Amino acid sequence: MKKLITTLAILSLLSLPVSAETLKSPDGTITLEFGLTGDGQPEYSLDYAGKEVIKPSKLGFRLVKGGDLDKDFEVVSVDTASVDETWQTVWGEESQIRSHYNEMKVNLKQKSTKRLMTIDFRLFNDGLGFRYEFPMQKKLSYFDITDELTEFAMTGDHTAYWIPADYDTQEYDYTRSRLSEIRGLMPEAWTHHNKWQELASPTGVQTSLQLKTDDGLYINIHEAALVDFPCMHLELNDSTMTFKALLTPDAVGNKAHMQTDCVTPWRTIIVSDDARDILASRITLNLNEPCAIEDTSWIKPCKYVGVWWEMITGKSKWSYTNDLPNIHLDRVDYTKLKPHGRHGATTENVKRYIDFAAKHGFDAVLVEGWNIGWEDWSNNMKDEVFDFVTPYPDFDLPGLRDYANEKGVKLIMHHETSSSVRNYERRLDEAYKFMKDNGYDAVKSGYVGNIIPAGSNHFSQWTNNHYLYAVKKAADYKIMVNAHEAVRPTGLCRTWPNLIGNESARGTEYQAFGGSKPSHTTILPFTRLIGGPMDYTPGIFEMDITKVNPKKKSWCNTTLANQLSLYVTMSSPLQMAADLPENYERFLDAFQFIKDVDLDWDQSYYLEAEPMEYLTVARKTRGADRWFVGGTNGAEPREAVVDFGFLPKDAKFTATIYRDGKDAHYRDNPQSYVIETKTVTSKTRLKIPEAAGGGFAISILPK
Amino acid sequence: MKKLITTLAILSLLSLPVSAETLKSPDGTITLEFGLTGDGQPEYSLDYAGKEVIKPSKLGFRLVKGGDLDKDFEVVSVDTASVDETWQTVWGEESQIRSHYNEMKVNLKQKSTKRLMTIDFRLFNDGLGFRYEFPMQKKLSYFDITDELTEFAMTGDHTAYWIPADYDTQEYDYTRSRLSEIRGLMPEAWTHHNKWQELASPTGVQTSLQLKTDDGLYINIHEAALVDFPCMHLELNDSTMTFKALLTPDAVGNKAHMQTDCVTPWRTIIVSDDARDILASRITLNLNEPCAIEDTSWIKPCKYVGVWWEMITGKSKWSYTNDLPNIHLDRVDYTKLKPHGRHGATTENVKRYIDFAAKHGFDAVLVEGWNIGWEDWSNNMKDEVFDFVTPYPDFDLPGLRDYANEKGVKLIMHHETSSSVRNYERRLDEAYKFMKDNGYDAVKSGYVGNIIPAGSNHFSQWTNNHYLYAVKKAADYKIMVNAHEAVRPTGLCRTWPNLIGNESARGTEYQAFGGSKPSHTTILPFTRLIGGPMDYTPGIFEMDITKVNPKKKSWCNTTLANQLSLYVTMSSPLQMAADLPENYERFLDAFQFIKDVDLDWDQSYYLEAEPMEYLTVARKTRGADRWFVGGTNGAEPREAVVDFGFLPKDAKFTATIYRDGKDAHYRDNPQSYVIETKTVTSKTRLKIPEAAGGGFAISILPK
Repeated sequence: MKKLITTLAILSLLSLPVSAETLKSPDGTITLEFGLTGDGQPEYSLDYAGKEVIKPSKLGFRLVKGGDLDKDFEVVSVDTASVDETWQTVWGEESQIRSHYNEMKVNLKQKSTKRLMTIDFRLFNDGLGFRYEFPMQKKLSYFDITDELTEFAMTGDHTAYWIPADYDTQEYDYTRSRLSEIRGLMPEAWTHHNKWQELASPTGVQTSLQLKTDDGLYINIHEAALVDFPCMHLELNDSTMTFKALLTPDAVGNKAHMQTDCVTPWRTIIVSDDARDILASRITLNLNEPCAIEDTSWIKPCKYVGVWWEMITGKSKWSYTNDLPNIHLDRVDYTKLKPHGRHGATTENVKRYIDFAAKHGFDAVLVEGWNIGWEDWSNNMKDEVFDFVTPYPDFDLPGLRDYANEKGVKLIMHHETSSSVRNYERRLDEAYKFMKDNGYDAVKSGYVGNIIPAGSNHFSQWTNNHYLYAVKKAADYKIMVNAHEAVRPTGLCRTWPNLIGNESARGTEYQAFGGSKPSHTTILPFTRLIGGPMDYTPGIFEMDITKVNPKKKSWCNTTLANQLSLYVTMSSPLQMAADLPENYERFLDAFQFIKDVDLDWDQSYYLEAEPMEYLTVARKTRGADRWFVGGTNGAEPREAVVDFGFLPKDAKFTATIYRDGKDAHYRDNPQSYVIETKTVTSKTRLKIPEAAGGGFAISILPK
Repeated sequence: MKKLITTLAILSLLSLPVSAETLKSPDGTITLEFGLTGDGQPEYSLDYAGKEVIKPSKLGFRLVKGGDLDKDFEVVSVDTASVDETWQTVWGEESQIRSHYNEMKVNLKQKSTKRLMTIDFRLFNDGLGFRYEFPMQKKLSYFDITDELTEFAMTGDHTAYWIPADYDTQEYDYTRSRLSEIRGLMPEAWTHHNKWQELASPTGVQTSLQLKTDDGLYINIHEAALVDFPCMHLELNDSTMTFKALLTPDAVGNKAHMQTDCVTPWRTIIVSDDARDILASRITLNLNEPCAIEDTSWIKPCKYVGVWWEMITGKSKWSYTNDLPNIHLDRVDYTKLKPHGRHGATTENVKRYIDFAAKHGFDAVLVEGWNIGWEDWSNNMKDEVFDFVTPYPDFDLPGLRDYANEKGVKLIMHHETSSSVRNYERRLDEAYKFMKDNGYDAVKSGYVGNIIPAGSNHFSQWTNNHYLYAVKKAADYKIMVNAHEAVRPTGLCRTWPNLIGNESARGTEYQAFGGSKPSHTTILPFTRLIGGPMDYTPGIFEMDITKVNPKKKSWCNTTLANQLSLYVTMSSPLQMAADLPENYERFLDAFQFIKDVDLDWDQSYYLEAEPMEYLTVARKTRGADRWFVGGTNGAEPREAVVDFGFLPKDAKFTATIYRDGKDAHYRDNPQSYVIETKTVTSKTRLKIPEAAGGGFAISILPK
């Protein structure tokens, strides 16, 4: 019997496509094969220039009832199309984006049940997007997905740049390892930095996942247009090196509740033999729906400072008093409570930031901790945690509104929800109206803590639905949203460009919570930023957090020049200068770059890139002849080569270069930097040294 | 060793109060004893006129963390008070209610943890209310309750009138049995009549629970002021005949999330040796907070008809079309769909009801199925199930609004939520505004189906919070609410008198779903109505549902006279005449009683009562010299004795009596009735025969 079993096992491992369809990218470099296995399971594979990228990988779903959508399929028809269109962005790395792909829709029928399912493949020159579509049909009207079977079968034990799959947080340091090492490294990677994190699997990782093969292929797996569906993680079978979709569950363990006609998000695979192409890919945006907002004139990039880093470092506090064990919003009277004296968002302190912003040309000031409720907001599963409209008694909202207005500075609203989703939705209209009534046109929202009601996860279908609800409603009020701790972006900012920022990864704040790896910002553009811009809050000039708050032992693991580079390499229409005004006052020459740098681009040029090592990016300002270059380096010193070929030919420009000093080092000497000016042309090639954890920034401004 | 174990067991069974406190009711009839057991667990017992009602019963809680609040307590202090006050009702069985009680607050401290907990006992002449109070304290700020330990230890194997404890529905027929029989009868009692019910325990029953002892005591256990807490069920230990609180869990199995200072709902025990006193008790209302609405002039009792029974019987439908497997609210175009021709809420049909209402002096017409989405509303866990503002194309809302207005008739709005709580909350402001814009001032809301998000229950803290939210927000809009399938009432209508009705029990609709027991309405006043009025929707004149819809085999198990009686015995400020206009046209003489009967009372007189057997109630109209008497009988024929002593002395009145015919029987001859007039005085005593499932109604109107 043993022999027979072996034979059967081999048979079942072999995929025997009974029908096969082939799709090629417009330039012919990438080839997709689709087929059905012998038992009628859909399967695809992907080649790049003759190299196998994705081995035959299964497609389908397990359902709560009605039978799985995993096999017994036949191909009813195949629809193909070629699309080449260019669309205008509202903001971003390019003013125009070309969407050029060949499409193949494979219309399937499950023979025994007559249920219909379509798989839509769109093959671009830089990769593949595919999604499942379920037409409206009597035999498949409502259904619950318990598991998505989509596989991404790797061809070997690739190098992966990964963070643990987690249903509730994305704020991890990245690990670079072989796929086979993920399981062993998981305990170390899954650091316990907050109370609500929930590990999804011992071999689970988050998307966007960056991979590199031993023969030099860069592969990136993510999703696009995550709408009304749970967020996808990837679970590795480390025997076969095959990833499988791992969807975020609801409170009872199901994944997605579907109503036909409906579609899943796109599953995306960007592939190239040049790492720079990963950064240049627009697949995620191209697979999202066009802008849904007719008048976008109110959506504006924004450079800001904020009453924030002083709380993050523990120098001041969000809260106002220590008098009470907890706060009942509906009956607290703060005027009768004794202030603890360390409240950050006081009228006086905010005025200082407004003055600083006005003096240095910033658009706005974010103020956290302005509203009542911060005494007991976190980790208490408190339903009515904030009301979003009542300031602390020492925060003179009308006065500051008028003061900021006089100075030509906007105030940015802050809505920490403490993940009390219902409370926020109940108060959202009033909160947004309050914003407009007081001149706020942007809000930073936050989702710290366990989602309420208990049992729900941050990245489940129900909660994802909430994040988008808040963004859509904000659009009704012409409000821009920067959501922290919300689900990682998947290009939805194309459709809703008022979503000007997200955190959804380990931001600069962790430099005050013990520090991030020096290489952190060399991997984020390959991973987190594939889905959309990040409110990373760069600009830390004082790396020794002890100097800000003697009780806080932490170190920002970058050089000062590296911090400058992030304004270019981490493109975002929303950029903070996160450090304290007094720290900028100490380095006004370097601060000049932050004052000068633009946030919105006509075009971007990816000059050098290697995940978790370095990247060098040049960008041309949208609608102006200004260029900025950023070079962000990882842990190893290197020499960047900047080719100024992106400049117009036959003209001379003056470049101001902000770079690491000779002896700079992220740990030992981070504030060593050099500022020099050079005349450059499109033929210039400059070699610029980058320190460990270092980098550089260049501004090329009109004279 | 065996002997030793026995000794220990006896020791732990014995309660050894180390301190004891006694409280007596104002009239001295009821005595409460409070004490601590040897290990410091709070304990209480209750006597009525020397008879033990509640044997020593434990009090306390189990918590998720921080240690249980179950023992190791000491009494810090005891506060006592006597209260005798009278308050005005906005509507109800009496215009004034006296609240007369002695109060004892036992302030406890857990010795090892220093945590404070108070138990507040209020002892009325008709029973006890007690609740737990948690002062704000550093050592107990936020906590999660996993179990409430409150016991109600019975003195014997009493007769109970019960329905199964269920976390999601209350719509059961009652079972009368010995306590010891509950477990065995549970499978039969827990009928599977809907898909979302969830049995709580094999010996779990719902409150309000009516009990009767062999020596003639009537005991009723319920709760009052259920605010921000899970609904309580009772779980019987059928070895010791002790009930224990069984709270409705959240999605992760916890019960209540608490933030000090806070209180639990009141646990109530009404007791008397006369069943009529149970009906007359105002403990539930008295334990609720006073009216929170300043101007209540817009809250008005309402007698109504509705486009409803025709859907319930299947004669017509809520839905409009059969064209699609499901409906996407955001993109359906009903004008392009073929009507199935059985839609009930058509303009023409609604006009017919408006005409009928105007002709017969009804205040309002309820219309269900007027708004889009009914094709797939039920059992689909559909998030965006209704929008509450878009009428079907064959429902001319502005036209009907104006038509009803001309006729002096109100339309009652209908908001079925399909338990998609978030969808309802998101749309609530718009829906209420739409109502006011179109002249609606009352809404019937519904919570059919599983609560969304999955894992939540109908009667959990989170969902209970929603029901009250909807009522409070309605008050902001001056809207009256009649919520169906919401948590059973606990007297909150005192605080929020715009909550003019609830279903929260097995209503008349079940007479079209196979029928209810003939005794059903003889137990509801002892159970469901202890918490507040019920929108029972009486007034069925055609008992053979087949005659309404030949495809529907069901029978309304009452006589026609019984149906009339319910307008008096089931007091409610909201009363429907539920049957079809054409059925009323056939019995206009009997229908006259429904036209005449009032809904709001100065005083009520409980003339006869025995749970699940019969009750006879007289009521004086609020602000008018009009009296109505109702006699509702159970399954056994009997003779009611009506003592007109409630009438003013020395005056003659004409009473119109609507009673069962001699040969009437709920199953064989339900439409046999007699109408007769008699002159009555306060000295009149009339014997009135009541058929099986029968009853009678009397109107005493000014000449």
